[in-house]
Amino acid sequence: MMRTHIGISLDGFLASASGMPAWDFQPTFDGSGHGYPEFMAKVGAVAMGRTSFDQGLDDWLGAWPWGDKPIFVLTSRPLPGNAPPHGRGRAGGVEGLAERIRNAGIDGDVQLLGGAKTVRAFLDAGALDRLGIVVLPLLLHRGIPLFDTEPLSFSTDAWRESGGQRDASPPAAFELDSQQAFDDGSMHLVYRPKR
Amino acid sequence: MMRTHIGISLDGFLASASGMPAWDFQPTFDGSGHGYPEFMAKVGAVAMGRTSFDQGLDDWLGAWPWGDKPIFVLTSRPLPGNAPPHGRGRAGGVEGLAERIRNAGIDGDVQLLGGAKTVRAFLDAGALDRLGIVVLPLLLHRGIPLFDTEPLSFSTDAWRESGGQRDASPPAAFELDSQQAFDDGSMHLVYRPKR
Repeated sequence: MMRTHIGISLDGFLASASGMPAWDFQPTFDGSGHGYPEFMAKVGAVAMGRTSFDQGLDDWLGAWPWGDKPIFVLTSRPLPGNAPPHGRGRAGGVEGLAERIRNAGIDGDVQLLGGAKTVRAFLDAGALDRLGIVVLPLLLHRGIPLFDTEPLSFSTDAWRESGGQRDASPPAAFELDSQQAFDDGSMHLVYRPKR
Repeated sequence: MMRTHIGISLDGFLASASGMPAWDFQPTFDGSGHGYPEFMAKVGAVAMGRTSFDQGLDDWLGAWPWGDKPIFVLTSRPLPGNAPPHGRGRAGGVEGLAERIRNAGIDGDVQLLGGAKTVRAFLDAGALDRLGIVVLPLLLHRGIPLFDTEPLSFSTDAWRESGGQRDASPPAAFELDSQQAFDDGSMHLVYRPKR
């Protein structure tokens, strides 16, 4: 089952403008709480986008977080020579990578690490089984949003034109699989996409 | 105590591009659930921005939702002649209105209705005591966000320039006052701004 466990600010950002994870703005975050150990205990492989891989590689080479578990990278370019030997890069797009992961006989969950574009691509492809987020009790105001968002201001003209009718496009919908509040005011929410 | 009870999509929109409330995209919403009756039972007055007032007035004149409870409108222009007699418009900005509300001897909570700009103005002025939201399990992708958001894409340059250090500006922080999951997957979260 492919799952995320991503910290986002209350205003929806998974990272600041410079790419610093939202987790790092939460004073109580040290990687040992917020359901992270329980999540990682069930993870048998990790998947991520190429930008996340390149961003994290230097840090990870010193202490590879996924042991000998397979890593899948969504990319069209070869991985660098210093990538760990279990790095399995290069995919035929999201659908191709999702199929390879399904056929890889992974024992456990597959962590979809990020970034935002990659999560959205797997979500849109129907390949993400559980969208797990931890809503941190803080506002970042600007940064990299988890979801693809286009913020608008209220327009009296748009309201009048709509005649009070719903916009045509139906939104994507989820079921809430589980929820847990942590002592620091963070909220763990796990959603199951409706298909 | 000034409080909100606002439905937002999982991606943070309180209304669609045409101004339709996010509530109206939730199939199970009829105004009788999601903690709304419990919230309204304690409300002794309502405050809102001028745009929300103008948008709602035609609907509300038929069945005024706040009975004889005072209404405060954040505006610099006189209210129209057909506004209900208990409408108390015109304020000296957010601080002025907040002070007038505090001195009005309201029996019960003051509902801060919206819209987004007005909520943010009261929040920024330290005049909002509880930020209550109901996170609806759906994505709208575009629309009017509750929070002031500037979505960016990940930039390798910005990441390198940051040197892996936190952005300077500290984010606004909250405490989680209460949380409740509803059967339809909506999640009621009440935050207390840290001061």
